[in-house]
Amino acid sequence: MATSDIKLLGASPSPYVNRVQIALNLKSIKYEFLEEKLGTKSELLLKSNPIHKKMPVLIHSGKSICESLIIIQYIDEVWTSGPPILPSDPYDGALARFWAAYLDDKWFPMLWELRTAEGEEAKVVALGWLREGLMLLEDAFAKCSKGKDYFGGDSIGYLDIAFGSFLGWLKVVEKMEELEFLDGTKTPGLVGWAERFCSHEAVKGAFPETEKLLEIAKMLQAKAKAKAQAQAQ
Amino acid sequence: MATSDIKLLGASPSPYVNRVQIALNLKSIKYEFLEEKLGTKSELLLKSNPIHKKMPVLIHSGKSICESLIIIQYIDEVWTSGPPILPSDPYDGALARFWAAYLDDKWFPMLWELRTAEGEEAKVVALGWLREGLMLLEDAFAKCSKGKDYFGGDSIGYLDIAFGSFLGWLKVVEKMEELEFLDGTKTPGLVGWAERFCSHEAVKGAFPETEKLLEIAKMLQAKAKAKAQAQAQ
Repeated sequence: MATSDIKLLGASPSPYVNRVQIALNLKSIKYEFLEEKLGTKSELLLKSNPIHKKMPVLIHSGKSICESLIIIQYIDEVWTSGPPILPSDPYDGALARFWAAYLDDKWFPMLWELRTAEGEEAKVVALGWLREGLMLLEDAFAKCSKGKDYFGGDSIGYLDIAFGSFLGWLKVVEKMEELEFLDGTKTPGLVGWAERFCSHEAVKGAFPETEKLLEIAKMLQAKAKAKAQAQAQ
Repeated sequence: MATSDIKLLGASPSPYVNRVQIALNLKSIKYEFLEEKLGTKSELLLKSNPIHKKMPVLIHSGKSICESLIIIQYIDEVWTSGPPILPSDPYDGALARFWAAYLDDKWFPMLWELRTAEGEEAKVVALGWLREGLMLLEDAFAKCSKGKDYFGGDSIGYLDIAFGSFLGWLKVVEKMEELEFLDGTKTPGLVGWAERFCSHEAVKGAFPETEKLLEIAKMLQAKAKAKAQAQAQ
Protein backbone atom coordinates (compact mmCIF):
# COMPACT_ATOMS: atom_id res chain seq x y z
CA MET A 1 0.00 0.00 0.00
CA ALA A 2 1.39 3.41 -0.96
CA THR A 3 2.31 5.69 1.94
CA SER A 4 0.24 8.45 0.37
CA ASP A 5 -2.82 6.28 0.90
CA ILE A 6 -2.45 6.57 4.67
CA LYS A 7 -2.45 10.04 6.16
CA LEU A 8 -2.53 11.08 9.79
CA LEU A 9 -3.81 14.54 10.69
CA GLY A 10 -2.55 15.76 14.01
CA ALA A 11 0.03 17.53 16.15
CA SER A 12 2.80 15.75 18.08
CA PRO A 13 2.04 17.27 21.51
CA SER A 14 -1.40 15.62 21.49
CA PRO A 15 -1.39 12.31 23.38
CA TYR A 16 -4.38 11.22 21.30
CA VAL A 17 -2.36 11.72 18.13
CA ASN A 18 0.60 9.90 19.72
CA ARG A 19 -1.65 6.88 20.26
CA VAL A 20 -2.23 6.55 16.55
CA GLN A 21 1.44 7.09 15.77
CA ILE A 22 2.39 4.30 18.19
CA ALA A 23 -0.23 1.92 16.76
CA LEU A 24 0.99 2.60 13.21
CA ASN A 25 4.62 2.10 14.32
CA LEU A 26 3.74 -1.20 16.02
CA LYS A 27 2.24 -2.44 12.77
CA SER A 28 5.21 -1.07 10.75
CA ILE A 29 2.87 1.02 8.63
CA LYS A 30 4.35 3.92 6.74
CA TYR A 31 2.17 7.01 6.60
CA GLU A 32 2.16 10.66 5.75
CA PHE A 33 1.97 12.93 8.80
CA LEU A 34 -0.02 16.08 8.11
CA GLU A 35 0.95 18.36 10.98
CA GLU A 36 -1.78 20.55 12.41
CA LYS A 37 -0.69 23.83 13.95
CA LEU A 38 -1.60 24.02 17.65
CA GLY A 39 -4.46 26.47 18.20
CA THR A 40 -5.72 26.42 14.63
CA LYS A 41 -7.75 23.91 12.64
CA SER A 42 -6.92 23.18 9.02
CA GLU A 43 -9.64 23.01 6.38
CA LEU A 44 -8.81 19.34 5.89
CA LEU A 45 -9.37 18.69 9.61
CA LEU A 46 -12.73 20.50 9.60
CA LYS A 47 -13.77 18.56 6.51
CA SER A 48 -12.53 15.20 7.80
CA ASN A 49 -14.03 15.43 11.29
CA PRO A 50 -16.96 17.86 10.92
CA ILE A 51 -18.70 16.60 14.08
CA HIS A 52 -15.97 17.05 16.68
CA LYS A 53 -13.44 19.09 14.66
CA LYS A 54 -10.67 17.38 16.58
CA MET A 55 -7.46 15.56 15.82
CA PRO A 56 -6.38 12.85 15.28
CA VAL A 57 -7.98 11.81 12.03
CA LEU A 58 -6.66 8.86 10.06
CA ILE A 59 -7.38 9.14 6.35
CA HIS A 60 -7.12 5.73 4.75
CA SER A 61 -7.88 5.37 1.04
CA GLY A 62 -9.86 8.59 1.24
CA LYS A 63 -12.00 7.51 4.21
CA SER A 64 -11.74 9.40 7.49
CA ILE A 65 -11.60 7.60 10.81
CA CYS A 66 -11.88 9.74 13.97
CA GLU A 67 -11.37 9.32 17.72
CA SER A 68 -8.04 7.86 18.84
CA LEU A 69 -9.26 4.63 20.45
CA ILE A 70 -11.55 3.92 17.51
CA ILE A 71 -8.63 4.51 15.14
CA ILE A 72 -6.43 2.07 17.08
CA GLN A 73 -9.07 -0.63 16.79
CA TYR A 74 -9.44 0.14 13.08
CA ILE A 75 -5.68 -0.18 12.54
CA ASP A 76 -5.67 -3.47 14.43
CA GLU A 77 -8.51 -4.87 12.32
CA VAL A 78 -7.17 -3.69 8.95
CA TRP A 79 -3.50 -4.61 9.31
CA THR A 80 -3.84 -8.06 10.82
CA SER A 81 -0.39 -9.19 9.70
CA GLY A 82 1.31 -7.01 12.33
CA PRO A 83 1.32 -7.82 16.06
CA PRO A 84 -2.22 -7.78 17.52
CA ILE A 85 -3.15 -4.74 19.62
CA LEU A 86 -6.54 -5.71 21.06
CA PRO A 87 -6.58 -8.79 23.32
CA SER A 88 -8.02 -11.88 21.65
CA ASP A 89 -9.76 -13.03 24.84
CA PRO A 90 -13.17 -11.31 25.23
CA TYR A 91 -12.78 -10.71 28.98
CA ASP A 92 -9.26 -9.31 28.58
CA GLY A 93 -10.63 -7.09 25.82
CA ALA A 94 -13.44 -5.85 28.07
CA LEU A 95 -10.94 -5.08 30.85
CA ALA A 96 -8.64 -3.17 28.48
CA ARG A 97 -11.59 -1.15 27.12
CA PHE A 98 -12.87 -0.44 30.63
CA TRP A 99 -9.56 1.00 31.86
CA ALA A 100 -8.93 2.91 28.65
CA ALA A 101 -12.34 4.59 29.07
CA TYR A 102 -11.55 5.30 32.74
CA LEU A 103 -8.34 7.02 31.70
CA ASP A 104 -10.04 9.07 28.99
CA ASP A 105 -13.21 10.01 30.83
CA LYS A 106 -11.96 10.38 34.40
CA TRP A 107 -8.24 10.23 35.11
CA PHE A 108 -6.68 12.36 32.40
CA PRO A 109 -9.30 15.14 32.58
CA MET A 110 -8.57 15.35 36.32
CA LEU A 111 -4.81 15.55 35.67
CA TRP A 112 -5.53 18.42 33.31
CA GLU A 113 -7.72 20.14 35.89
CA LEU A 114 -4.99 19.88 38.52
CA ARG A 115 -2.97 22.39 36.53
CA THR A 116 -5.76 24.91 36.70
CA ALA A 117 -7.22 24.04 40.13
CA GLU A 118 -7.96 27.20 42.07
CA GLY A 119 -6.89 27.14 45.70
CA GLU A 120 -4.86 24.75 47.84
CA GLU A 121 -7.84 22.69 48.99
CA ALA A 122 -9.08 21.91 45.47
CA LYS A 123 -5.55 20.86 44.53
CA VAL A 124 -5.17 18.52 47.50
CA VAL A 125 -8.50 16.85 46.72
CA ALA A 126 -7.62 16.41 43.02
CA LEU A 127 -4.17 15.10 43.89
CA GLY A 128 -5.59 12.53 46.31
CA TRP A 129 -8.06 11.37 43.71
CA LEU A 130 -5.34 11.08 41.05
CA ARG A 131 -3.11 9.03 43.35
CA GLU A 132 -6.01 6.75 44.20
CA GLY A 133 -6.60 6.31 40.47
CA LEU A 134 -2.99 5.26 40.01
CA MET A 135 -3.38 2.61 42.71
CA LEU A 136 -6.37 1.26 40.78
CA LEU A 137 -4.27 1.25 37.62
CA GLU A 138 -1.47 -0.54 39.49
CA ASP A 139 -4.00 -3.27 40.34
CA ALA A 140 -5.25 -3.28 36.76
CA PHE A 141 -1.65 -3.73 35.57
CA ALA A 142 -1.23 -6.84 37.74
CA LYS A 143 -4.53 -8.22 36.46
CA CYS A 144 -4.00 -7.45 32.76
CA SER A 145 -0.28 -8.16 32.42
CA LYS A 146 -0.46 -11.46 34.35
CA GLY A 147 3.15 -10.98 35.47
CA LYS A 148 4.41 -10.02 32.02
CA ASP A 149 5.92 -6.76 30.75
CA TYR A 150 2.88 -4.90 29.44
CA PHE A 151 -0.84 -4.50 30.04
CA GLY A 152 -1.10 -6.45 26.77
CA GLY A 153 1.12 -9.26 28.11
CA ASP A 154 4.35 -9.91 26.21
CA SER A 155 3.79 -7.02 23.83
CA ILE A 156 2.32 -3.52 23.80
CA GLY A 157 -1.46 -3.62 23.49
CA TYR A 158 -4.52 -1.37 23.49
CA LEU A 159 -4.37 -0.30 27.14
CA ASP A 160 -0.59 0.21 27.00
CA ILE A 161 -1.13 2.69 24.18
CA ALA A 162 -4.14 4.35 25.85
CA PHE A 163 -2.30 4.90 29.15
CA GLY A 164 1.24 5.22 27.82
CA SER A 165 0.30 8.13 25.56
CA PHE A 166 -0.36 10.19 28.71
CA LEU A 167 3.08 9.55 30.25
CA GLY A 168 4.67 12.58 28.58
CA TRP A 169 2.05 14.88 30.09
CA LEU A 170 2.24 13.08 33.42
CA LYS A 171 5.94 14.00 33.57
CA VAL A 172 5.12 17.60 32.68
CA VAL A 173 2.62 17.88 35.53
CA GLU A 174 5.15 16.25 37.88
CA LYS A 175 7.69 18.92 36.95
CA MET A 176 5.28 21.82 37.16
CA GLU A 177 3.82 20.75 40.49
CA GLU A 178 7.13 19.42 41.86
CA LEU A 179 5.75 16.04 42.83
CA GLU A 180 6.08 12.39 41.87
CA PHE A 181 3.10 10.37 40.69
CA LEU A 182 4.70 7.03 39.94
CA ASP A 183 6.95 5.77 42.71
CA GLY A 184 8.64 2.47 43.38
CA THR A 185 6.89 1.89 46.70
CA LYS A 186 3.24 2.46 45.84
CA THR A 187 3.17 1.73 42.13
CA PRO A 188 6.19 -0.51 41.42
CA GLY A 189 4.44 -2.30 38.58
CA LEU A 190 3.61 0.94 36.77
CA VAL A 191 7.13 2.36 37.29
CA GLY A 192 8.71 -0.62 35.53
CA TRP A 193 6.00 -0.65 32.87
CA ALA A 194 6.41 3.08 32.09
CA GLU A 195 10.16 2.64 31.61
CA ARG A 196 9.70 -0.32 29.30
CA PHE A 197 6.93 1.42 27.37
CA CYS A 198 8.86 4.66 26.79
CA SER A 199 11.98 2.86 25.59
CA HIS A 200 10.08 0.59 23.18
CA GLU A 201 11.05 1.00 19.53
CA ALA A 202 7.48 1.86 18.48
CA VAL A 203 7.19 4.56 21.15
CA LYS A 204 10.59 6.26 21.16
CA GLY A 205 10.26 9.56 19.36
CA ALA A 206 6.47 9.27 19.05
CA PHE A 207 5.97 12.02 21.58
CA PRO A 208 8.02 15.16 22.16
CA GLU A 209 10.64 15.49 24.94
CA THR A 210 9.34 16.54 28.36
CA GLU A 211 11.08 19.94 28.08
CA LYS A 212 9.27 20.68 24.84
CA LEU A 213 5.91 19.62 26.32
CA LEU A 214 6.66 21.74 29.38
CA GLU A 215 7.07 24.82 27.19
CA ILE A 216 3.75 24.06 25.48
CA ALA A 217 2.02 23.51 28.83
CA LYS A 218 3.26 26.87 30.13
CA MET A 219 2.08 28.58 26.98
CA LEU A 220 -1.36 26.93 27.22
CA GLN A 221 -1.62 27.85 30.89
CA ALA A 222 -0.77 31.48 30.17
CA LYS A 223 -3.37 31.55 27.39
CA ALA A 224 -6.05 30.03 29.64
CA LYS A 225 -5.29 32.55 32.39
CA ALA A 226 -5.45 35.49 29.99
CA LYS A 227 -8.78 34.22 28.64
CA ALA A 228 -10.21 33.82 32.16
CA GLN A 229 -9.08 37.32 33.10
CA ALA A 230 -10.59 38.80 29.94
CA GLN A 231 -13.89 37.05 30.69
CA ALA A 232 -13.86 38.29 34.29
CA GLN A 233 -13.51 41.91 33.20
CA MET B 1 -24.34 -22.98 29.78
CA ALA B 2 -26.55 -22.79 32.88
CA THR B 3 -28.71 -19.66 33.15
CA SER B 4 -27.37 -19.13 36.67
CA ASP B 5 -23.93 -18.63 35.16
CA ILE B 6 -25.09 -15.45 33.42
CA LYS B 7 -26.50 -12.68 35.56
CA LEU B 8 -27.45 -9.16 34.63
CA LEU B 9 -27.56 -6.49 37.32
CA GLY B 10 -29.77 -3.58 36.41
CA ALA B 11 -33.14 -1.85 36.34
CA SER B 12 -35.48 -1.89 33.35
CA PRO B 13 -35.93 1.89 33.02
CA SER B 14 -32.20 2.29 32.30
CA PRO B 15 -31.50 2.44 28.57
CA TYR B 16 -27.98 1.20 29.28
CA VAL B 17 -29.41 -1.92 30.91
CA ASN B 18 -31.85 -2.33 28.00
CA ARG B 19 -28.90 -2.46 25.63
CA VAL B 20 -27.52 -5.53 27.34
CA GLN B 21 -30.96 -7.14 27.48
CA ILE B 22 -31.38 -6.63 23.73
CA ALA B 23 -27.93 -8.01 22.96
CA LEU B 24 -28.60 -11.10 25.09
CA ASN B 25 -32.01 -11.56 23.42
CA LEU B 26 -30.44 -11.27 19.96
CA LYS B 27 -28.03 -14.04 20.83
CA SER B 28 -30.85 -16.12 22.44
CA ILE B 29 -28.95 -16.24 25.72
CA LYS B 30 -30.92 -17.05 28.85
CA TYR B 31 -29.87 -15.12 31.93
CA GLU B 32 -30.89 -14.26 35.44
CA PHE B 33 -32.02 -10.65 35.82
CA LEU B 34 -31.08 -9.23 39.20
CA GLU B 35 -33.27 -6.14 39.47
CA GLU B 36 -31.72 -3.09 41.11
CA LYS B 37 -34.10 -0.74 42.88
CA LEU B 38 -34.01 2.75 41.34
CA GLY B 39 -32.27 5.22 43.66
CA THR B 40 -30.40 2.58 45.67
CA LYS B 41 -27.33 0.48 44.96
CA SER B 42 -27.18 -3.15 46.03
CA GLU B 43 -24.11 -4.56 47.74
CA LEU B 44 -23.59 -6.82 44.75
CA LEU B 45 -23.57 -3.80 42.42
CA LEU B 46 -21.04 -1.93 44.58
CA LYS B 47 -18.86 -5.03 44.72
CA SER B 48 -19.17 -5.80 41.00
CA ASN B 49 -18.50 -2.28 39.73
CA PRO B 50 -16.50 -0.59 42.50
CA ILE B 51 -15.08 2.09 40.18
CA HIS B 52 -18.26 3.58 38.73
CA LYS B 53 -20.89 1.93 40.99
CA LYS B 54 -23.25 1.92 38.03
CA MET B 55 -25.49 -0.55 36.28
CA PRO B 56 -25.51 -2.52 34.08
CA VAL B 57 -23.07 -5.19 35.15
CA LEU B 58 -22.96 -8.56 33.43
CA ILE B 59 -21.68 -11.32 35.67
CA HIS B 60 -20.51 -14.21 33.56
CA SER B 61 -18.97 -17.24 35.27
CA GLY B 62 -18.23 -15.06 38.28
CA LYS B 63 -16.46 -12.33 36.26
CA SER B 64 -17.95 -8.83 36.14
CA ILE B 65 -18.11 -6.86 32.92
CA CYS B 66 -19.15 -3.19 33.16
CA GLU B 67 -20.21 -0.37 30.82
CA SER B 68 -23.02 -1.14 28.39
CA LEU B 69 -21.15 -0.79 25.09
CA ILE B 70 -18.23 -2.83 26.42
CA ILE B 71 -20.67 -5.52 27.57
CA ILE B 72 -22.29 -5.65 24.11
CA GLN B 73 -18.92 -6.21 22.48
CA TYR B 74 -18.11 -8.87 25.08
CA ILE B 75 -21.38 -10.68 24.38
CA ASP B 76 -20.69 -10.54 20.65
CA GLU B 77 -17.21 -11.99 21.08
CA VAL B 78 -18.18 -14.75 23.52
CA TRP B 79 -21.36 -16.03 21.86
CA THR B 80 -20.21 -16.15 18.27
CA SER B 81 -22.83 -18.69 17.21
CA GLY B 82 -25.63 -16.09 17.40
CA PRO B 83 -26.07 -13.31 14.82
CA PRO B 84 -23.08 -10.92 14.78
CA ILE B 85 -23.59 -7.53 16.47
CA LEU B 86 -20.42 -5.64 15.57
CA PRO B 87 -19.83 -5.06 11.84
CA SER B 88 -17.16 -7.32 10.37
CA ASP B 89 -15.79 -4.57 8.12
CA PRO B 90 -13.26 -2.40 10.02
CA TYR B 91 -14.54 0.89 8.55
CA ASP B 92 -18.17 0.02 9.26
CA GLY B 93 -17.10 -0.91 12.79
CA ALA B 94 -15.32 2.44 13.22
CA LEU B 95 -18.43 4.29 11.99
CA ALA B 96 -20.73 2.39 14.36
CA ARG B 97 -18.40 3.08 17.31
CA PHE B 98 -18.12 6.76 16.36
CA TRP B 99 -21.87 7.33 16.33
CA ALA B 100 -22.47 5.25 19.44
CA ALA B 101 -19.93 7.44 21.28
CA TYR B 102 -21.60 10.57 19.87
CA LEU B 103 -24.95 9.41 21.24
CA ASP B 104 -23.51 8.57 24.66
CA ASP B 105 -21.23 11.56 25.11
CA LYS B 106 -23.22 14.31 23.38
CA TRP B 107 -26.72 13.63 22.18
CA PHE B 108 -28.35 11.75 25.05
CA PRO B 109 -26.86 13.98 27.79
CA MET B 110 -28.32 16.96 25.93
CA LEU B 111 -31.75 15.28 25.70
CA TRP B 112 -31.55 14.80 29.45
CA GLU B 113 -30.58 18.43 30.00
CA LEU B 114 -33.52 19.62 27.93
CA ARG B 115 -35.84 18.37 30.66
CA THR B 116 -34.12 20.53 33.25
CA ALA B 117 -33.14 23.50 31.04
CA GLU B 118 -33.85 26.75 32.84
CA GLY B 119 -35.54 29.43 30.74
CA GLU B 120 -37.01 29.53 27.28
CA GLU B 121 -33.81 30.58 25.51
CA ALA B 122 -31.74 27.68 26.88
CA LYS B 123 -34.48 25.29 25.82
CA VAL B 124 -34.63 26.65 22.27
CA VAL B 125 -30.86 26.34 21.90
CA ALA B 126 -30.83 22.76 23.24
CA LEU B 127 -33.76 21.80 21.05
CA GLY B 128 -32.09 23.19 17.92
CA TRP B 129 -28.92 21.29 18.74
CA LEU B 130 -30.83 18.05 19.33
CA ARG B 131 -32.67 18.38 16.01
CA GLU B 132 -29.41 19.04 14.22
CA GLY B 133 -28.00 15.91 15.85
CA LEU B 134 -30.92 13.89 14.51
CA MET B 135 -30.20 15.16 11.01
CA LEU B 136 -26.63 13.92 11.42
CA LEU B 137 -27.96 10.58 12.59
CA GLU B 138 -30.34 10.46 9.62
CA ASP B 139 -27.27 10.81 7.36
CA ALA B 140 -25.44 8.19 9.40
CA PHE B 141 -28.38 5.84 8.95
CA ALA B 142 -28.19 6.17 5.17
CA LYS B 143 -24.43 5.57 5.28
CA CYS B 144 -24.45 2.64 7.69
CA SER B 145 -27.61 0.82 6.56
CA LYS B 146 -26.74 1.08 2.86
CA GLY B 147 -30.43 1.05 2.01
CA LYS B 148 -31.27 -1.85 4.31
CA ASP B 149 -33.47 -1.98 7.42
CA TYR B 150 -31.01 -1.30 10.21
CA PHE B 151 -27.82 0.59 10.96
CA GLY B 152 -26.32 -2.92 11.02
CA GLY B 153 -27.72 -3.73 7.54
CA ASP B 154 -30.14 -6.66 7.38
CA SER B 155 -30.10 -7.24 11.10
CA ILE B 156 -29.87 -5.27 14.33
CA GLY B 157 -26.28 -4.35 15.13
CA TYR B 158 -24.17 -2.37 17.61
CA LEU B 159 -25.36 1.11 16.63
CA ASP B 160 -29.00 -0.01 16.41
CA ILE B 161 -28.77 -1.14 20.03
CA ALA B 162 -26.83 1.96 21.14
CA PHE B 163 -29.35 4.38 19.59
CA GLY B 164 -32.47 2.25 19.86
CA SER B 165 -32.13 1.92 23.63
CA PHE B 166 -32.80 5.67 23.88
CA LEU B 167 -36.06 5.56 21.90
CA GLY B 168 -38.20 4.94 25.00
CA TRP B 169 -36.81 8.07 26.67
CA LEU B 170 -37.04 10.03 23.44
CA LYS B 171 -40.78 9.35 23.42
CA VAL B 172 -41.02 10.43 27.04
CA VAL B 173 -39.36 13.76 26.33
CA GLU B 174 -41.63 14.21 23.27
CA LYS B 175 -44.67 13.74 25.51
CA MET B 176 -43.42 15.98 28.30
CA GLU B 177 -42.36 18.78 25.98
CA GLU B 178 -45.26 18.29 23.54
CA LEU B 179 -43.06 18.08 20.48
CA GLU B 180 -41.98 15.59 17.85
CA PHE B 181 -38.35 14.69 17.31
CA LEU B 182 -38.61 12.09 14.59
CA ASP B 183 -40.81 13.14 11.69
CA GLY B 184 -41.43 11.73 8.26
CA THR B 185 -40.24 14.84 6.41
CA LYS B 186 -36.88 15.55 8.02
CA THR B 187 -35.88 12.15 9.29
CA PRO B 188 -37.81 9.60 7.19
CA GLY B 189 -35.06 7.00 7.47
CA LEU B 190 -35.01 7.16 11.27
CA VAL B 191 -38.83 7.05 11.53
CA GLY B 192 -38.97 3.76 9.63
CA TRP B 193 -35.96 2.40 11.46
CA ALA B 194 -37.40 3.23 14.91
CA GLU B 195 -40.63 1.41 14.07
CA ARG B 196 -38.79 -1.66 12.84
CA PHE B 197 -36.43 -1.61 15.80
CA CYS B 198 -39.16 -1.35 18.45
CA SER B 199 -41.24 -4.14 16.95
CA HIS B 200 -38.27 -6.52 16.62
CA GLU B 201 -38.61 -9.74 18.64
CA ALA B 202 -35.38 -9.09 20.57
CA VAL B 203 -36.49 -5.58 21.54
CA LYS B 204 -40.20 -5.94 22.32
CA GLY B 205 -40.63 -5.93 26.08
CA ALA B 206 -36.95 -5.08 26.71
CA PHE B 207 -37.87 -1.59 27.84
CA PRO B 208 -40.91 -0.41 29.79
CA GLU B 209 -43.97 1.20 28.15
CA THR B 210 -43.76 4.96 27.55
CA GLU B 211 -46.42 5.63 30.22
CA LYS B 212 -44.37 3.81 32.84
CA LEU B 213 -41.20 5.69 31.82
CA LEU B 214 -43.18 8.94 31.91
CA GLU B 215 -44.13 8.32 35.54
CA ILE B 216 -40.50 7.62 36.39
CA ALA B 217 -39.36 10.76 34.55
CA LYS B 218 -41.84 12.91 36.49
CA MET B 219 -40.68 11.38 39.75
CA LEU B 220 -37.02 12.00 38.88
CA GLN B 221 -37.78 15.57 37.83
CA ALA B 222 -39.63 16.27 41.09
CA LYS B 223 -36.71 14.83 43.06
CA ALA B 224 -34.18 16.93 41.15
CA LYS B 225 -36.24 20.10 41.70
CA ALA B 226 -36.59 19.41 45.43
CA LYS B 227 -32.85 18.86 45.69
CA ALA B 228 -32.07 22.07 43.81
CA GLN B 229 -34.46 24.03 46.04
CA ALA B 230 -32.93 22.53 49.20
CA GLN B 231 -29.45 23.50 47.97
CA ALA B 232 -30.57 27.03 47.15
CA GLN B 233 -31.90 27.60 50.67
